[in-house]
Amino acid sequence: MSDKLAEIITEALAFRNERDWERFHDPKNLAEAITIETAELLENFLWATTDESRHMEGAKLGRVKNEVSDILIYIIYLCQALDIDLVKEARKKLQINRQKYPVEKSKGSSKKYTEF
Amino acid sequence: MSDKLAEIITEALAFRNERDWERFHDPKNLAEAITIETAELLENFLWATTDESRHMEGAKLGRVKNEVSDILIYIIYLCQALDIDLVKEARKKLQINRQKYPVEKSKGSSKKYTEF
Amino acid sequence: MSDKLAEIITEALAFRNERDWERFHDPKNLAEAITIETAELLENFLWATTDESRHMEGAKLGRVKNEVSDILIYIIYLCQALDIDLVKEARKKLQINRQKYPVEKSKGSSKKYTEF
Amino acid sequence: MSDKLAEIITEALAFRNERDWERFHDPKNLAEAITIETAELLENFLWATTDESRHMEGAKLGRVKNEVSDILIYIIYLCQALDIDLVKEARKKLQINRQKYPVEKSKGSSKKYTEF
Repeated sequence: MSDKLAEIITEALAFRNERDWERFHDPKNLAEAITIETAELLENFLWATTDESRHMEGAKLGRVKNEVSDILIYIIYLCQALDIDLVKEARKKLQINRQKYPVEKSKGSSKKYTEF
Repeated sequence: MSDKLAEIITEALAFRNERDWERFHDPKNLAEAITIETAELLENFLWATTDESRHMEGAKLGRVKNEVSDILIYIIYLCQALDIDLVKEARKKLQINRQKYPVEKSKGSSKKYTEF
Repeated sequence: MSDKLAEIITEALAFRNERDWERFHDPKNLAEAITIETAELLENFLWATTDESRHMEGAKLGRVKNEVSDILIYIIYLCQALDIDLVKEARKKLQINRQKYPVEKSKGSSKKYTEF
Repeated sequence: MSDKLAEIITEALAFRNERDWERFHDPKNLAEAITIETAELLENFLWATTDESRHMEGAKLGRVKNEVSDILIYIIYLCQALDIDLVKEARKKLQINRQKYPVEKSKGSSKKYTEF
């Protein structure tokens, strides 16, 4: 089994190197870029109810696919800029979340851990 | 070589199932959650210059690691909710970007493709 | 009748001058600050349905009041930094919107003008 | 002297009533709309340094003017939906900020009050 995230990281960095764009990719600007792509993602759900948002197809679903991809690609660039191992950190964060949200306190509840 | 993204997806979905949180995770709310985590990421770069943002360490770097992880985890939930194959879509988007930003037009330039 | 927005602008700029903060308030950082406050506003509606969001009270309503205020204050700073007359521009934008969204095409519809 | 913000509020609500849009304007969706407009504002500063962002003109300045107007208009709708007196709340928030950020602790410093 191949490591697909590693392949995308390689591909995304090659794309950038060919265009000599690393010079623009300081962490502050990358964080802004992630913010902008995220708002473009959110726009696809604007004026819908939460229930309506469960049923998405056609051009709108296509735009959602593009936006989540853009967010992932910019996160890859940010992690490269700050020497962050995304896979390792996501694992560690899931471990933190398991401690912040013990099953017995959080099951079936949308409360933030600060509200327990 | 193992597929690390697939492992995180498995782990993130297990975390959620144990807490019975899927009921809250409609795409509209997940897109909002991604937006909120992204702003928390951006907050770490607020009032810094772009150059200063390149040098990040200690507690601030720790927070950045947590935020990029949270964004990735919520993207995984959104992709699961809408049956999106994140790896496949990111690949497709990189292919789209290669066509929108041909090397000869975009090399060393931060212009948007709409400004070529 | 006094001009209340003008009074808030005066008060907000006095607050800033006393703290010598204008030096941090370049437009890029102010736009980031508005983004961060906006996400803090949105967080109050996270995991709610659109209907539930209509009924808000107590501490949550208090936080919403604080966040809309923060957004307005940062917009005032941004307008000052770029010499923008907010009242005049909002009027002009409403005029643009009246043309983009003629009553006969937009009545009772949440479609974006690009979808007419 | 006329109260210009009150005039814009009147005009913005009239614009909406003519289009029968209040039905879409629950607080959750309005908070999303503010988020989206804010990201469109931020996009005008993307890839710029903080210094470069101080000098803005032409079409880009025009877009910034439109975006701050859109944000203000949506904030007006949100305040109307939740019966918030924006002017009164902004005044109260400035008073809170004066207490959180005493001049002697905050003068010339971009530290958050939680870091004092």
